[in-house]
Amino acid sequence: MRKITGFHAIEELLKTGKAEGRLLVSGSGPRIKTILELARKAGLPVVKATNEELSRLAPEHRGVVLETSREEAAGEADLGEFLERAEGAKTSLVLVLDHIEDPQNFGAILRSADVFSCDLVIAPNRRAAPLTEAAARASAGALAHVPLALVPNLAEALRRLADAGFWRYAADMGGDSLPKADLPAKLALVMGNEGSGVSRLLRDECDGSLSIPQSGHVDSLNVSAAAAVLLYEYRRRFPAK
Amino acid sequence: MRKITGFHAIEELLKTGKAEGRLLVSGSGPRIKTILELARKAGLPVVKATNEELSRLAPEHRGVVLETSREEAAGEADLGEFLERAEGAKTSLVLVLDHIEDPQNFGAILRSADVFSCDLVIAPNRRAAPLTEAAARASAGALAHVPLALVPNLAEALRRLADAGFWRYAADMGGDSLPKADLPAKLALVMGNEGSGVSRLLRDECDGSLSIPQSGHVDSLNVSAAAAVLLYEYRRRFPAK
Repeated sequence: MRKITGFHAIEELLKTGKAEGRLLVSGSGPRIKTILELARKAGLPVVKATNEELSRLAPEHRGVVLETSREEAAGEADLGEFLERAEGAKTSLVLVLDHIEDPQNFGAILRSADVFSCDLVIAPNRRAAPLTEAAARASAGALAHVPLALVPNLAEALRRLADAGFWRYAADMGGDSLPKADLPAKLALVMGNEGSGVSRLLRDECDGSLSIPQSGHVDSLNVSAAAAVLLYEYRRRFPAK
Repeated sequence: MRKITGFHAIEELLKTGKAEGRLLVSGSGPRIKTILELARKAGLPVVKATNEELSRLAPEHRGVVLETSREEAAGEADLGEFLERAEGAKTSLVLVLDHIEDPQNFGAILRSADVFSCDLVIAPNRRAAPLTEAAARASAGALAHVPLALVPNLAEALRRLADAGFWRYAADMGGDSLPKADLPAKLALVMGNEGSGVSRLLRDECDGSLSIPQSGHVDSLNVSAAAAVLLYEYRRRFPAK
């Protein structure tokens, strides 16, 4: 059961019509009024609760909690909540995983995302979202710590990241040379599938692309090695607090 | 059958008493005279050959070729030849793998070593030298390209690297912060075992240690992710030709 507390996140989720579960309300005010109206339209049960009850459920609540059991909905809501918080941030690092297939790679990338303090990892909630035991093992425990949003539409997520002030860069062989490229303080980095790279659709949505200088015989780095290098380079310039 | 052509490498190998096979000679001069003397002491057969015959065996020969079938000796000889060439080099990047156990990691590291143009990878020729099919697959073909010396004694290899002008750094959690550390132009980077890190013996032999700044919940990066980051940082400062 996921507990969503951000006003914006709850609103977005209710607007999608995909919200399931119930809405718990202890507070009032114009924002909560809007949310109650949206819940009514979405046909979601609304339960009155005390402040103390909500605090036990979700200590960070601001008078309203959406309880949902649906993973897909939870993923979308996480993105909404994150974007709400990130809008005012000066620096932020988001990793977007475009259909990584190998659970070992997926887990290793989550491990690096944790080590380099990614603020959010976004992955598709369908196809090639290898949240398997093997991925959990390869993540060395990071799966439990890294904020992960599973969303139905990566291109839509990239558009919303732009609205929240992020610059979106695809990791791509023909991109700007990483050591020389300007990196934005609010960076969403898109890593592509092991075989086919970042999909055309997402590349077109991105503001630019980055490549790691390579001088060997094999085609490219393993995607989890590339992710580690890109995250390192961002943190070299924008150290974690 | 390995063909060793470097004067220094042949001399070193003959001095160890581990040379097997035969010495083919077409040239003359003081250096070759020394080698013939060492071969006599080592009890190694010497065969006269023409320049053309040697060129067919080893195009880069300088009048003498040591043919050896012994893997252990060959590894040492590879190291000897490399050091001979590297002595005059201004920059050089060597990766020393201290008992990496997972073939997937071993292969992924070789792939990164190729991408970042490592001049040599050194690994032990016993225990945990996982040159398996899985490693070959994970290397994405790099295994065929990366110069790899399998040696009997890593500490001895580190000593010889120092003699050839290399600075030896261990990748270690407590080391100097990678982005801020001075990196030597001739760097031998020691990566440790997945569980136990760089062994005490090798750490003591090293001139220093380097660590990648980390700010997450899990202990550390996967060893192949860490290797990619360290190799990237070296190449950022000393680009490959």
